[in-house]
Amino acid sequence: MIRIGILGYGNLGKGVESAIMQNPDMELAAVFTRRNPDSVKVQTAGTKVLSADALNDMQKEIDVLILCGGSATDLPAQTPAYAAMYNVVDSFDTHARIPEHFAAVDAAAKKSGKTGIISCGWDPGMFSLNRLYANCILPEGHDYTFWGKGVSQGHSDAVRRIAGVKDCRQYTIPVPEALLAVRSGSNPELTTRQKHTRECFVVAEEGADLAAIEQEIVTMPNYFADYDTTVHFITEEEMKRDHSGLPHGGCVLRTGNTGIHKEHSHVIEYSLKLDSNPEFTGSVIAAYARAAYRMNQEGQTGAKTVFDIAPAYLSAKSGDELRAHLL
Amino acid sequence: MIRIGILGYGNLGKGVESAIMQNPDMELAAVFTRRNPDSVKVQTAGTKVLSADALNDMQKEIDVLILCGGSATDLPAQTPAYAAMYNVVDSFDTHARIPEHFAAVDAAAKKSGKTGIISCGWDPGMFSLNRLYANCILPEGHDYTFWGKGVSQGHSDAVRRIAGVKDCRQYTIPVPEALLAVRSGSNPELTTRQKHTRECFVVAEEGADLAAIEQEIVTMPNYFADYDTTVHFITEEEMKRDHSGLPHGGCVLRTGNTGIHKEHSHVIEYSLKLDSNPEFTGSVIAAYARAAYRMNQEGQTGAKTVFDIAPAYLSAKSGDELRAHLL
Repeated sequence: MIRIGILGYGNLGKGVESAIMQNPDMELAAVFTRRNPDSVKVQTAGTKVLSADALNDMQKEIDVLILCGGSATDLPAQTPAYAAMYNVVDSFDTHARIPEHFAAVDAAAKKSGKTGIISCGWDPGMFSLNRLYANCILPEGHDYTFWGKGVSQGHSDAVRRIAGVKDCRQYTIPVPEALLAVRSGSNPELTTRQKHTRECFVVAEEGADLAAIEQEIVTMPNYFADYDTTVHFITEEEMKRDHSGLPHGGCVLRTGNTGIHKEHSHVIEYSLKLDSNPEFTGSVIAAYARAAYRMNQEGQTGAKTVFDIAPAYLSAKSGDELRAHLL
Repeated sequence: MIRIGILGYGNLGKGVESAIMQNPDMELAAVFTRRNPDSVKVQTAGTKVLSADALNDMQKEIDVLILCGGSATDLPAQTPAYAAMYNVVDSFDTHARIPEHFAAVDAAAKKSGKTGIISCGWDPGMFSLNRLYANCILPEGHDYTFWGKGVSQGHSDAVRRIAGVKDCRQYTIPVPEALLAVRSGSNPELTTRQKHTRECFVVAEEGADLAAIEQEIVTMPNYFADYDTTVHFITEEEMKRDHSGLPHGGCVLRTGNTGIHKEHSHVIEYSLKLDSNPEFTGSVIAAYARAAYRMNQEGQTGAKTVFDIAPAYLSAKSGDELRAHLL
C-alpha cells in the first residue's frame, strides 16, 4: 500500500481523497491542514486530520505527500520545503514560473533523496503531455489549446472583488467557429477574442448599480478586456441551483504536414469533458503519486514533470499486463 | 546527428524517410532492401541503397535501424535478429502476439546491450498511450476505440484475393451514432456491427460475376461477416483518381466517474485525422528512434514499448526548453 498524505483540504484536496478511494493500492494516511484540525471533517473513514505542523515528524508514516495549496503563494514555498522531507506531488499551474519552481524543488529533493513531481493535473499536465507528443510527431505544424466550457476560478474571483458583487461564476467558452477552423487543418491565426468568449453569472448586492458592475467586468484588463464577455445577473437561489458545479475541459490540437512535398496534413486532438475539475485533477495527481513512489524506490530523485515520467509508472499493473491488454 | 538506417522501402519506409527530413538532428544513413538495390530509388539526395546483407557489417555507421517490414512474417524474425546488432524500432501491430515479440526482442537486445522499441506507431502506439493514461486517471470507466474513416490494407488485400477482383480499397468507418453515444458518457455496450461499417471500392475483371463477388465479400468470416458492408464496383480510372491515398485515423475514448458517490462523469478523447497513414506512422517512429538512441546512450537496454519511455526522450529540445514552452 502506498500511504498518501494530503496537505490542504479544499476542493482539490477533496478531489485527491476521492481519487485515492478508487486506487486499491493506495491509502489515505492523514489529511494535514493549517486550519484547526477539529474543524475539518474528511470523507475517508478512520483517517486522521492533523495540523500541518505534524508533518515535521511523519516521515515514517507517509510515502507521498500531495500538496493541494494554491499556486500564487502556497506551493512556491511548500513544495520545496516538503520535498526536503517527503516525496511530493503538486499541481503548480503558474506556467511562467514553472522553471524557477522546478529548480527550487529539484535542489531540495536531490539533497533529501526524495522525488518531487510538479505541475501535475490537466493543464499543466495531460494537456502538456499532448502538446509534447504531438510536437515530436509533427515537427512542422501549429499548436492550439482551447479551454472550456468550464468554470474559471481565477476569473470568478476577479469579479467577486468588484464592489456590489456578492458572488460570481465565470465560464470560459471556446468559439465554435474557431474550433471548426482548427480541426479542418487550415491553420488559422486566431486572436484571443476569436478563440474564447466569457460568460459571467453574477449575484449583485441589493441596490447595486448593475450597469456599472457590467461595465467594470467587460473592461477589466487581463481578465476580460480582450474577450467578448456576456454578463447575466441572477439570484442567489439560481446561483446555487444552476452553478454549484465546477465543470471544465477543453482540447489541445496540433495540425501539421508530412511528405516530401508536405502534401499530407494531419490533425491530432486531445479533449477533455469534465464534470468536476478538482476531482479530475485529483485523479491525475493520484496516478502520479504512484509514479513518485516507484521512481523514488528506484533511486530516481529530484524534481520531475509529466515529461520525465514513463507512462507505465502511473499504473498499478505490471509491464506484462499492460503489454497484453492496453498496447 | 542520429544516423538512421531503414530496412524495407515500401509505404512505411518512405514515410519514415520523409519524417527524417523534418528532424534536423537525424540523417538517413542508408536504405536497406531485400530487392535488387539498383531497382530502388530513394528521395533523399546522396543516400545509399544497399542490400539487406550489408547490415551484417554496418554497426559503425548506423545508430538506429528502423524495421519497416510486415508484422505477419518479417518483423517476428527481423526485430530480434537485428536487435542483436543495432538499436531498433519496429511497428509490430499484431496485438495478440506482442508479449512473445517483446520477449524475443528483449532477450536479444539485453544480450547485445542495444535498445529495441517495438509496436510503435498510432495503434499500437499513440492510441495505446492514451488508453494507458486514461485508465490510470479514471480507474473506474469504459474504454472505446474507433478506427477510421480510413483505408484498411488488410481488408483491401483480403478482397483482392477473391477470384475476379483486380483491385480493392476498403474503408473502415465509425458509426456516427455510436460515437455520439460514447461521447455523451452513457457508457453504451456496443457490438462489432454497431461500432463500424465497412465500404469496399472494387475493380472487377471483365466478365466477372459481380453479384458473386459482392456476396463473397459481405459474408467473409473475420473480415466482413460481422459488419454492415457496402460494395461499389468502379473502374480502374476511378480507383486511381479517387482512392489512391492512404488516409486513416480514429479515436480512443475513456469515460469514467469520480466522486465519493461516483456522481461526476468525465470523457477523455484522443483523435487522429491522417491524410497519410504510413507518413504519420513513420513520423511517430522517427520520434521514438530518437528515444532509442538516447536511452541506449544512458544504458537503458532491452525491449521497450511506448509505455516504458518518458515523453521527453522523444524531443530534440532540452528539459529546460520543454518546461518553459510546452508544460
